[in-house]
Amino acid sequence: MKFTLHKTDVLSKARAGSIETDHGTIQTPIFMPVGTVASVKGVHQKELREEIDPDIILGNTYHLFLRPKTQILKQAGGLHKFMGWDRNILTDSGGYQVYSLSANRKIKEEGVKFKSHIDGSTHMFTPENVMEIQRVIGADIIMAFDECTPYPCDYNYAKRSMHMTHRWLDRCIDHLEKTPFEYDYAQSFFPIVQGSTYKDLRRQSAEYIANAGAEGNAIGGLSVGEPADELYAMTEVVCEILPEDKPRYLMGVGTPINILENIALGVDMFDCVMPTRNARNGMLFTAHGTINIKNKKWEDDFSPLDEMGTTFVDREYSKAYLRHLFAANEYLGKQIATIHNLGFYLWLVREARKRILAGDFREWKDRMVKQMDKRL
Amino acid sequence: MKFTLHKTDVLSKARAGSIETDHGTIQTPIFMPVGTVASVKGVHQKELREEIDPDIILGNTYHLFLRPKTQILKQAGGLHKFMGWDRNILTDSGGYQVYSLSANRKIKEEGVKFKSHIDGSTHMFTPENVMEIQRVIGADIIMAFDECTPYPCDYNYAKRSMHMTHRWLDRCIDHLEKTPFEYDYAQSFFPIVQGSTYKDLRRQSAEYIANAGAEGNAIGGLSVGEPADELYAMTEVVCEILPEDKPRYLMGVGTPINILENIALGVDMFDCVMPTRNARNGMLFTAHGTINIKNKKWEDDFSPLDEMGTTFVDREYSKAYLRHLFAANEYLGKQIATIHNLGFYLWLVREARKRILAGDFREWKDRMVKQMDKRL
Repeated sequence: MKFTLHKTDVLSKARAGSIETDHGTIQTPIFMPVGTVASVKGVHQKELREEIDPDIILGNTYHLFLRPKTQILKQAGGLHKFMGWDRNILTDSGGYQVYSLSANRKIKEEGVKFKSHIDGSTHMFTPENVMEIQRVIGADIIMAFDECTPYPCDYNYAKRSMHMTHRWLDRCIDHLEKTPFEYDYAQSFFPIVQGSTYKDLRRQSAEYIANAGAEGNAIGGLSVGEPADELYAMTEVVCEILPEDKPRYLMGVGTPINILENIALGVDMFDCVMPTRNARNGMLFTAHGTINIKNKKWEDDFSPLDEMGTTFVDREYSKAYLRHLFAANEYLGKQIATIHNLGFYLWLVREARKRILAGDFREWKDRMVKQMDKRL
Repeated sequence: MKFTLHKTDVLSKARAGSIETDHGTIQTPIFMPVGTVASVKGVHQKELREEIDPDIILGNTYHLFLRPKTQILKQAGGLHKFMGWDRNILTDSGGYQVYSLSANRKIKEEGVKFKSHIDGSTHMFTPENVMEIQRVIGADIIMAFDECTPYPCDYNYAKRSMHMTHRWLDRCIDHLEKTPFEYDYAQSFFPIVQGSTYKDLRRQSAEYIANAGAEGNAIGGLSVGEPADELYAMTEVVCEILPEDKPRYLMGVGTPINILENIALGVDMFDCVMPTRNARNGMLFTAHGTINIKNKKWEDDFSPLDEMGTTFVDREYSKAYLRHLFAANEYLGKQIATIHNLGFYLWLVREARKRILAGDFREWKDRMVKQMDKRL
């Protein structure tokens, strides 16, 4: 992986860069659509490529481990071939899912014992086997195995957990050195900063992670219910410490506004289920605010879905038609809303990149944050 | 509407024709994908146009009347504009849905009182208001209001019902004469032959319908549970009587084999929910037989979905991937299977047309019927 920093904004810490991997170039800032279980829900890979056009998408190790299972992915020659996606993929490490499964997992120094949400079968994730699983899945960027603490989190728990995440990081790195690439392309490894919402822990963790000298670095344990101010405060202290010449990935964030604010703080990469999950509930993000397409007010609004939209759904379908599909519980409604929202998120980060390069990012960001805060 | 008969097969009664309407040419034999409530479930109109490529699709008057309701369709300028489909549309009359709602409807000479399956509200369909509703929906081909009898059906009930359907037909025709087109294009009206599985009633009904001198004629009340032999026997007697110079539409039929056999008996138009509904349950139709993609045998079959398939899903996705999507209950699986099945049905009728024009339809049909009867 090669990261090039093209420009840093003067009035903010926003950065425009590019990451080169064996599966192509990722222009940053980037938003990575979430393809949990080898599919971005309701979206054909062709539409993803041709309409939404992200340089990279995300897969979830926990879900892929359970279905289709590692063995099938190995036989397929990796996730890219299995799902027919020849651009970049990043996989998380299962750490976040372990956190989500709070009732069905037990965290120990060795690793995490958990029960499958599908059939209740018992499994164990350790830093070592998660590295092996991610080798077989074969994403271009793979993540360290960490514990994602909940919010709010007791200081002592956050501290203990952070130190365990650091010890797990060392085990990940040791094990990766012994585990060659599975396929004919390289994988880059990103460690994850933890420390809950405590600035001193975040600083400590960022220093530990920076010292690992990885090709890129991630910020985890946020977007778990904390107020936006706390999120921004953590990003700010962490970005001051993480090396400038490596990409920074803020995991699981967030709303369009969260994304712009965090770009302003120096984050390069994002992922979140919000554009896809909210789409399935009829919520559309636009440059002028959010739309609840289920509202009766759209019933006879025959104007295009989003005049400023970049995808075919924005031009070809009307608000009234999409409202009808949601009222009639037709799945095409969810498909349309998903393509719109992902198209919008990708437009947003591409536009941010243009503004950073043009030098007027800060002014544009402030205007957009106001605009996007409305409900239409 | 202008129907041109290009060729009739020598060894069967199969016909290749074309229908010209204000929304373009329909090459026959044709299969019409079902877009019940202004959407072919799980398929974007763009995919329908570019990948499946039917000259005509079907909408259901009963469903459209309830959602989005006639008033919204009128404001939109008709169903074509509402859903963004500029090729041909045919709407049924609600007669079949009335039959399906058996517990919630009362059939009288005046018309049918029924309860909405959505909110239990009471409505009345009469031959007159169904013509008005279909004017507003604005399909290119609209259907007579009929009663679709169940199978099996008592002879006397079938006879009484058939006569009522004939009286309703006269009322439809009278009322249509008083009801101008709603939009700037013409609509053609097709009456429907009934008579259950009784040859004498079918003959009587076919004569009555033929005498109406409509632009096309339909055969209804079949594919409701009767054995294939009875279906074919009814089609045969009816096609002998219906005029040769008008298109013949067999409603609600059927499997790929049913379609080829009925083409051989002189039918020109078909519709059925089978390719779309069965797709959503993981059943794929192919030229070499049917596939239940949920079976474990496909788990590690990384070959393309259908090497002979005509759509992008056939080339871009593997059987193992589709099997995984069904196992993981990912909606993309249903989307892929639906596009495949509709692509196959459209390929089948286009291929039938080519064979009729080339003169080797009968031989091809007999071979295909054997091939498609297998389970893969």
